[in-house]
Amino acid sequence: MKLTRDKVSSNFSEWYDWVLSEAEILDYGRYPVKGMGVWMPYGFKIRERVLANIRNLLNETGHEEVLFPLLVPETLLAKEAEHIEGFQGEVFWVTKGGNEELDVKLALRPTSEVSITYMENLWIKGYTQLPKKYYQIVSVFRYETKATRPLLRVREITTFKEAHTIHESYEDAERQVREAISIYKKFFDSLGIPYVISVRPEWDKFAGALYTVAFDTIFPDGRVVQIGTVHHLGQNFTKAFDMKIQRADGSLDYPHQTSYGISDRAIAAIIAIHGDDHGAVLHPLVAPILVVVIPIPAKEEGEKVKDYARKIAHSLNSAGIITKIDDNEKATPGEKYYYWELRGVPLRVEVGRRELASKTVSIKRRDTLESKEVELNHLIDAVREILKQIEDNMRTSSWKRMKDLVSRVDDLNLAKSRLESKLGIVEVPWCGNNKCGLKMEEQTGGRVLGSPYEGAEIQGKCVVCGSPAETVLRIAKTY
Amino acid sequence: MKLTRDKVSSNFSEWYDWVLSEAEILDYGRYPVKGMGVWMPYGFKIRERVLANIRNLLNETGHEEVLFPLLVPETLLAKEAEHIEGFQGEVFWVTKGGNEELDVKLALRPTSEVSITYMENLWIKGYTQLPKKYYQIVSVFRYETKATRPLLRVREITTFKEAHTIHESYEDAERQVREAISIYKKFFDSLGIPYVISVRPEWDKFAGALYTVAFDTIFPDGRVVQIGTVHHLGQNFTKAFDMKIQRADGSLDYPHQTSYGISDRAIAAIIAIHGDDHGAVLHPLVAPILVVVIPIPAKEEGEKVKDYARKIAHSLNSAGIITKIDDNEKATPGEKYYYWELRGVPLRVEVGRRELASKTVSIKRRDTLESKEVELNHLIDAVREILKQIEDNMRTSSWKRMKDLVSRVDDLNLAKSRLESKLGIVEVPWCGNNKCGLKMEEQTGGRVLGSPYEGAEIQGKCVVCGSPAETVLRIAKTY
Repeated sequence: MKLTRDKVSSNFSEWYDWVLSEAEILDYGRYPVKGMGVWMPYGFKIRERVLANIRNLLNETGHEEVLFPLLVPETLLAKEAEHIEGFQGEVFWVTKGGNEELDVKLALRPTSEVSITYMENLWIKGYTQLPKKYYQIVSVFRYETKATRPLLRVREITTFKEAHTIHESYEDAERQVREAISIYKKFFDSLGIPYVISVRPEWDKFAGALYTVAFDTIFPDGRVVQIGTVHHLGQNFTKAFDMKIQRADGSLDYPHQTSYGISDRAIAAIIAIHGDDHGAVLHPLVAPILVVVIPIPAKEEGEKVKDYARKIAHSLNSAGIITKIDDNEKATPGEKYYYWELRGVPLRVEVGRRELASKTVSIKRRDTLESKEVELNHLIDAVREILKQIEDNMRTSSWKRMKDLVSRVDDLNLAKSRLESKLGIVEVPWCGNNKCGLKMEEQTGGRVLGSPYEGAEIQGKCVVCGSPAETVLRIAKTY
Repeated sequence: MKLTRDKVSSNFSEWYDWVLSEAEILDYGRYPVKGMGVWMPYGFKIRERVLANIRNLLNETGHEEVLFPLLVPETLLAKEAEHIEGFQGEVFWVTKGGNEELDVKLALRPTSEVSITYMENLWIKGYTQLPKKYYQIVSVFRYETKATRPLLRVREITTFKEAHTIHESYEDAERQVREAISIYKKFFDSLGIPYVISVRPEWDKFAGALYTVAFDTIFPDGRVVQIGTVHHLGQNFTKAFDMKIQRADGSLDYPHQTSYGISDRAIAAIIAIHGDDHGAVLHPLVAPILVVVIPIPAKEEGEKVKDYARKIAHSLNSAGIITKIDDNEKATPGEKYYYWELRGVPLRVEVGRRELASKTVSIKRRDTLESKEVELNHLIDAVREILKQIEDNMRTSSWKRMKDLVSRVDDLNLAKSRLESKLGIVEVPWCGNNKCGLKMEEQTGGRVLGSPYEGAEIQGKCVVCGSPAETVLRIAKTY
């Protein structure tokens, strides 16, 4: 048994479908509506832990969880001109209730800016109430016409954490953009998911935003996936709803808003980025089970070995380390190894007669597949220590893999061939002119992710027009 | 300040709308789609605690949480004849995606039996996999044409916990019905919600079920509210999907199913049943805040009083008792009392110079509005003890109030006048014939809830036909 990622990278698409289905995370492609999958019990628990993580980060920064209706009247969605323009082509519409035609079509929410602004207009009267930070975790819907991919490009995004904030001033909303970015950094850092942060180009910002900042990561096949976005909405929506509030100086003005979201794609990234040829490798922070204990059957002392295994599981659970004992007699140890490795349980503890006699346990790490023998007396500390090492190793190696796929080139043809050969992200010097940016997309066949949110070292000339570069643009093949 | 429930019972409807809105639980009636409300942050937290409670009960009995798609193709919904017949008049239909008409109309799930059975048919091959118990907590939709009421009769039921189980035999499904009933008993008992359990009459069972057992409670206005249902589905859905599995004896047969649900109405009951004229009275199990500490401003030693209050809040929080200190200087103590009583916080701790000097605190119970002085040394124990007393008192008094509203009568005219004067539930002897049951509805203007699930003492004759009674039927005016 070797640690390999051959299948993951050489045939990612197949590997990804296999792991979601075989590890019973998501049943996708069989439910009789295109682009909609079923979260299986094991996958649901992973999702729950991911959500607990983001909820903690949001709650401790003063965000309040709410729940808005699914249905948005067409008249409401149409309030902000760019917004409806951006979304109307991909909205599911409810047009009938029972046998009656509805007077006003109702959209399945594609996102909730208009609903939230509508209610904020009733709730918020003056600056003393601001800032307000709301969020909800809901399903959103997009009528995708392209080929769908589980958790990546779907018609029902079952996990959409959308935050919506409102502020007295442009500057306070800008401060909120920074806070959101710092929350998302913590979130992805805690899960060992590497990312680059880019200011999306003008032509690819959120419909209705002043500007959009996005988190992107690189999947094992070299393609880039957007895993989080943060939008400064300015006064676009509050003006559309004619929502004025009293400011500190007594004047009336439209408040400023931000919104930011992460979705199912965060879970896709957890699976895809850490996985190997044996299956999922779950980060300890989101693994539903941290340790699986497997008693090795023995003709003699079989019961004693089982008791020993139970004792170990009990002491781990008592220490708050979620542990499962797999003492199913119908399966062989080999079948159990396969089963739990596929599901990505971070640690496997094997105990047989030898361990029983020596009062030790054998601990196998899922991330490196390395084994270690530990004395029973030091079990809890050893497990905690190894889990910590796993987190460190997952973060370090996933960042290393990503950085190897980001390259700076000064020539558009080279950029194009890089994108065609090894994909990843190429960064090219850019003058700042949108026309040149759009040409880069045309000529490379890639998609512009935008310029770095945090300062990039700039040298050289725009690869399109030859003017001195103001920044770099990141280009990639995306999902 | 007196403990009264005058407004609650004499003008329940107005009181109920007031408490949901003023206590910032649910913003209802202002979102621009009829029958859909917005969970506000405080209400969302109550809802979260209610859900944590039911999740615990389900998880510890081997139920697995899943998440199915919202949309159900018409062709799927139509698989079971009685089911589609029962639901088609009240389903919201998605007919368009973007600008395209869909080939097959998609229903917003009114419930999920067909979706679940469809996938079970792929997942389950033989009896060794059974029983399986799934549940999900989702929004479901009903195109209500009657007047809507928040959390009671709505178009988006935002909190629908639906469990779906599948079994080798009829008997095992029946055992599951009993398990479900025992789970719901624990759930409502833990929240001090009184109930009666009835076998719904044949004409009012769930569309597609063999029989339905329901939990009903009585609201302060005397009207009855269904707060939970349990259905034995038999082989109705598995036959409709031609789902056969291998049984222990090697033969192939259709498995048996049950389903059971509770909804937003459980939360409505928590608010309505325990509330008083000051607002909500939250059960400690679901209160987002258990204790609010209010420092009484003092000209001298004001800072010392605040420090004392902070120390108290800190020690309560450290003991795991969620406590908030309200030291807002812009509000008077009186305004704070109003605010937190309205929101139903179980305990209020007031501290001023007197308490500081005597090293005591004054604790006020929300349920009885009684105050008690406690020494600081015994604070934690005293708070735990009083919270326990609150739970006991809430349960005892709500059960007493309900039982006063259930009466046994032997005459249909008397039943009718009871229902017209004080509402509640009347129980009348019944021969068991459905025709007689339907006549009771006609002649009393009430609705038949069904016969007691657990044995009722029967004497007398059917109030319609005069034959010897087999059981009693419960009749009520319902929401």
